[in-house]
Amino acid sequence: MSDLTLYLAPGTCAMAVRIALTEAGAPHVVTRLDLAAGEQRSPAYLAINPKGRVPALVTERGVLTETPALLLYVAQRFPDAGLAPLDDPFLLARMQEVHGFLAATVHVAHAHGRRGSRWADDPQAIAAMQAKVPHNMREGFAEIERHYLAGPWVLGERFSLADIYLFVVASWLEGDGVAISDFPKVADHYRRMLARPGVQQGLAL
Amino acid sequence: MSDLTLYLAPGTCAMAVRIALTEAGAPHVVTRLDLAAGEQRSPAYLAINPKGRVPALVTERGVLTETPALLLYVAQRFPDAGLAPLDDPFLLARMQEVHGFLAATVHVAHAHGRRGSRWADDPQAIAAMQAKVPHNMREGFAEIERHYLAGPWVLGERFSLADIYLFVVASWLEGDGVAISDFPKVADHYRRMLARPGVQQGLAL
Repeated sequence: MSDLTLYLAPGTCAMAVRIALTEAGAPHVVTRLDLAAGEQRSPAYLAINPKGRVPALVTERGVLTETPALLLYVAQRFPDAGLAPLDDPFLLARMQEVHGFLAATVHVAHAHGRRGSRWADDPQAIAAMQAKVPHNMREGFAEIERHYLAGPWVLGERFSLADIYLFVVASWLEGDGVAISDFPKVADHYRRMLARPGVQQGLAL
Repeated sequence: MSDLTLYLAPGTCAMAVRIALTEAGAPHVVTRLDLAAGEQRSPAYLAINPKGRVPALVTERGVLTETPALLLYVAQRFPDAGLAPLDDPFLLARMQEVHGFLAATVHVAHAHGRRGSRWADDPQAIAAMQAKVPHNMREGFAEIERHYLAGPWVLGERFSLADIYLFVVASWLEGDGVAISDFPKVADHYRRMLARPGVQQGLAL
């Protein structure tokens, strides 16, 4: 079984897949892309991921993309790490619900600050999107604080992939003009994540 | 085991969960919300789903939301229907990858035509977002046509949840100003889906 190769960039959601791999103790190789230099749109990378985004995970059966898909893949492939409640349909759905909310609502809210040109061409429209980012990030994290952090972990007593993904998305708050301290449970969770050796190992590239 | 209750609105991604339930032959009750009348923001519904969106699925253990999470839940809870390759981590990740792309990229592109006020307050910005919807839907479906339809089904010979979700998102194309016939494999897949009794049963509310 050959090693997995993960294409990522620091500060992106791809870091969640990296941390899942280190938390799982999974052998893997990391290839870092320089997004500012446009490496994600190079012909070499587009041959790996035609969408021109990170993450991409090269496996012996082909390339996989999309963060929630990669997270579940790591959990299924390295089941001994216990990163997902694979045999409990309700709890797995709750974990996936959090992933879905982070990917399709919170990450999308964040992306309007940096990649507004995806959704409009007019520079004034792009500026109007940027202006609303703090509001939308705040709204997303208010929802997380109220409903998605049973504590100490997202799923309660059980650590899971959802903790990893939440941690990475929470790391964007300050850059988006939102104080993480406004969300005490999220801030506490963030500190607890930073204290995990698997997380520290994942952050070190 | 009490029946599941699905909250949905016609024409939304919640229809994918409805069709998954009928394809699985799963006992369930449907409650229809009138989005134009704002029923998704009524106190009664916000008590079920504080995010004020469809779908929401009420189970005997609690409420679940987010379409990709609900789809996998249906597959895990009714495994005899074979709606997902649960025991094949690579193929399951590929299915989840398609769900992730539909939820966080294509659905988001579509939403900028109807709910641009989520991401900007300026009416001109909202109009600029609407103007880009056909371009972005076209780009999303070009990706699907090239890479995500092995044929005859999304995963090749094996029918799965990804076919159901793709079918529902493809039904939005005409309303978004894109001719489905521009994507022959998608159009062919759409016709094949319409011919399935489980799909017809799901569409009939």
